[in-house]
Amino acid sequence: MERTDAEDSDRNLTPDELAWDHRHASPSTMVSSSQKALIDFARERLGERGVVVDRDDLAPWLTDWRGRYHGDAPALLQPDTLADVAAILERANALGVALVPQGGNTSMVGGATPPADGSALILSLRRMNRIRRIDADQNLAVAEAGVILQNLHEAAEAQGRRFPLTLGARGSATIGGLVSTNAGGTQVLRHGTMRALVAGVEAVLPDGAIHDGLAPLKKDNRGYDLNQLLIGAEGTLGIITAATLRLVPAIARRAVAWVGLDHPRTALNLLRRIEARTDAIESFEIIPGDSLALVLSAIPDTRAPLASEHRWHVLIEAVSGEGEELDPKKLLETVLADAFEAGMAEDAVIAASESQAEALWKLRHSLSEAERSAGPAVQHDISVPVAAMPDFMIDAAREAEARFPGTHATAFGHLGDGNVHFHVRAPQGAGWDRWYAQEAETISRFVNDLVVAAGGSISAEHGIGQMKLHELERLGSPARLSMLRAVKAAIDPRAICNPGKLVSLAPASRGT
Amino acid sequence: MERTDAEDSDRNLTPDELAWDHRHASPSTMVSSSQKALIDFARERLGERGVVVDRDDLAPWLTDWRGRYHGDAPALLQPDTLADVAAILERANALGVALVPQGGNTSMVGGATPPADGSALILSLRRMNRIRRIDADQNLAVAEAGVILQNLHEAAEAQGRRFPLTLGARGSATIGGLVSTNAGGTQVLRHGTMRALVAGVEAVLPDGAIHDGLAPLKKDNRGYDLNQLLIGAEGTLGIITAATLRLVPAIARRAVAWVGLDHPRTALNLLRRIEARTDAIESFEIIPGDSLALVLSAIPDTRAPLASEHRWHVLIEAVSGEGEELDPKKLLETVLADAFEAGMAEDAVIAASESQAEALWKLRHSLSEAERSAGPAVQHDISVPVAAMPDFMIDAAREAEARFPGTHATAFGHLGDGNVHFHVRAPQGAGWDRWYAQEAETISRFVNDLVVAAGGSISAEHGIGQMKLHELERLGSPARLSMLRAVKAAIDPRAICNPGKLVSLAPASRGT
Repeated sequence: MERTDAEDSDRNLTPDELAWDHRHASPSTMVSSSQKALIDFARERLGERGVVVDRDDLAPWLTDWRGRYHGDAPALLQPDTLADVAAILERANALGVALVPQGGNTSMVGGATPPADGSALILSLRRMNRIRRIDADQNLAVAEAGVILQNLHEAAEAQGRRFPLTLGARGSATIGGLVSTNAGGTQVLRHGTMRALVAGVEAVLPDGAIHDGLAPLKKDNRGYDLNQLLIGAEGTLGIITAATLRLVPAIARRAVAWVGLDHPRTALNLLRRIEARTDAIESFEIIPGDSLALVLSAIPDTRAPLASEHRWHVLIEAVSGEGEELDPKKLLETVLADAFEAGMAEDAVIAASESQAEALWKLRHSLSEAERSAGPAVQHDISVPVAAMPDFMIDAAREAEARFPGTHATAFGHLGDGNVHFHVRAPQGAGWDRWYAQEAETISRFVNDLVVAAGGSISAEHGIGQMKLHELERLGSPARLSMLRAVKAAIDPRAICNPGKLVSLAPASRGT
Repeated sequence: MERTDAEDSDRNLTPDELAWDHRHASPSTMVSSSQKALIDFARERLGERGVVVDRDDLAPWLTDWRGRYHGDAPALLQPDTLADVAAILERANALGVALVPQGGNTSMVGGATPPADGSALILSLRRMNRIRRIDADQNLAVAEAGVILQNLHEAAEAQGRRFPLTLGARGSATIGGLVSTNAGGTQVLRHGTMRALVAGVEAVLPDGAIHDGLAPLKKDNRGYDLNQLLIGAEGTLGIITAATLRLVPAIARRAVAWVGLDHPRTALNLLRRIEARTDAIESFEIIPGDSLALVLSAIPDTRAPLASEHRWHVLIEAVSGEGEELDPKKLLETVLADAFEAGMAEDAVIAASESQAEALWKLRHSLSEAERSAGPAVQHDISVPVAAMPDFMIDAAREAEARFPGTHATAFGHLGDGNVHFHVRAPQGAGWDRWYAQEAETISRFVNDLVVAAGGSISAEHGIGQMKLHELERLGSPARLSMLRAVKAAIDPRAICNPGKLVSLAPASRGT
């Protein structure tokens, strides 16, 4: 059962596809004597295969997949054992050489792109790609950092299990990066983000010390939770080398429904009504009527799921696993009957076949592509408390459109997670480059201010990386920012782990 | 629906009951000039009611509820607003005066007892006891640190909801302490520990900065998770003042079964078989046959749940909430029929009434009391990976009995959480004080070594506090210990928050 997350659907680029970017790499990079010492050390320890210095070979890894961030690095090191990662970090720390950890290079926020000045080496975990163990009885897998998500999906499926986290970049994104960014996706409603799916973490701290936290302990109160600290730290506190991950039974049956309704508030009320009855709902995605219209006009082989037009739509998926008694289709029939009775649903349909289910998902997955065809947009990955989301979707869109005349603002996505993709589209006829260059930052600041006012997060899924560093500094509370800096300085005092991402060590100038 | 956790059932002491302990308090305590300055500041800010210096009034709070740890403090400060907590911490930090946070004073590991030298003041959160909000629609409650667990239970129940964490000390334990120790209990199997039930945290950091992390964001990737860092930190990184907590529907129906079987391995296989079918199991507790025999002989009004004798027993509880279709009794009937067919269950019974259900739980809850009547025991709160628990229970008991001749070792409790209470009982006729004084430390080290060898945790539920500090230093990995010290020093550089608990700032001498 495959799914992709539309807004990320073009993340799945191969290094070859990205190779055009090597024109951005400078022909030669100054290498410091410390860097040279680390490269020599790595060459001796890992062999020639473990060290990449050729400019053409390096090129794909110096730029993020969307071509927005261009970095430089004299070398890429690729160890394939825990001991080698530990040895490299220990030496790098002693030498004061910074390392940028990298997996599939699918960051949405420039989190895996090295600094432009070539001051860091890339530490690729892609060769550390063993699935050490799948224990179907225990519903656990132990996967190394370089395991590609899709490979884990397939290995779990071969044993009647499922790793219930997926996203568009599943063919490239690696476990280390997914854990380090606390990845989300379309199944968070039921199964949580990566944080909830990680049962254990193995990592190397900046000084080379090994943290063996793989044992899946359900209860462990030995102080500050180092695993939790490393999850979502974007590689700034050490290098995750493996994770123990929770599995669930493979999907035996699924049912997908499409509902037309009048307002996001109705959608949320519907979700709550359903959740009071069952926890089998995996996805609950909201789509504005005009965005659906864009999909139908721009994307081939799509057709309206309902005969009538509606201001808002939701896609609902329910699943049951092997051996579970629940019939997801019957469940959706029951809840939709109840929704009609309660006056919540205007119209609805349940997919009668797997291909119909896929067709409904295709509408959801095509939203970003359809939006792009309508012109440039500034995109935001934001969250607010679930209860506040319906009003936020309406009010923030109205406010943005009023503040930036001619723009069109839309929000769609994971309503049940309080996480939508908030797009502000350029006025008709605006040239992409010019409009974006002139307006993007102002628009983002405006949207982020609204998010903070609603008690939300300016990064729901994608992390901070380079892209949101300044906004985090601008909007984070003093307590949060000083904690970030204090923890970073304490655990990585020489600042060798992913410098320039997530946290800047010097306090930004702030009004007092 | 009330439950208590037997091993903690005597925790529920009131300050009055503890008052005998004031004989341990020294008649007068040296007060430093900095302490005096903080006391004066607090008196001015909080009024007389907010500052306790009377020795008799202080006495109950200077000793842990079991009378094992005796501390001293010149004063107890009791602010009742966030702003007052922040003001006190800011001033204490500036003055370098240490504070020991305290809620219900129900720590199992001396975590809330001040140092013996009177170098710290007690910061009681008990007056900060408002339930700020219960939002039944959202299944969320916002409770201040001083709210007593039982009061939260009742407030949730009044709105058809349940806060699904409970333990023996529910009549005394407060939300701040429960969050700060990542409390567990008997419902962790389905609902997780406190860490899983906390949707937001409000806290004051050691420098007085306020962390407002109460907003219940399901997705938030703005760097290191300060909420997660504070949960389970035992008050050593700041003072939790309130938490947003997840609720679930109130229990509409429950069913309780008792099963006799041959081995913990069979019990675990049975649990897995049931979990493949349903996630409605709230409790799955394992009890050795000889422990049950102790209960039946020592505790009045108890009777054998099954006609025949069995080496092991499990108690299973399934529940369904208001509006859920699941019938828990039918569910247990189905899974037990299946268990008989699979040759897993030797005998079983399902409670036919609520009073029968209570009678079955009483057997479980009386285990600690029955064990105590059989003589002194050294108790351990430990966890190992769930899959390793059945063998651990058998092997560790055998090894402990072989190593300490005449002792009797038993393990019982939360099998599905990989967490048992492991007791080593004194040989017949041994005097409590002498035997405990001579043997307790050696036995605990032996048991903890076995736990570490099995990849487990020497503190599953109770935390580290003072009691387990040395064992954590002896057994923790260098990576874990250096992380604990680095984070503590970074966030609380003047070491004013709960000194001497969880982490000691100076590295212990270690073999190299």
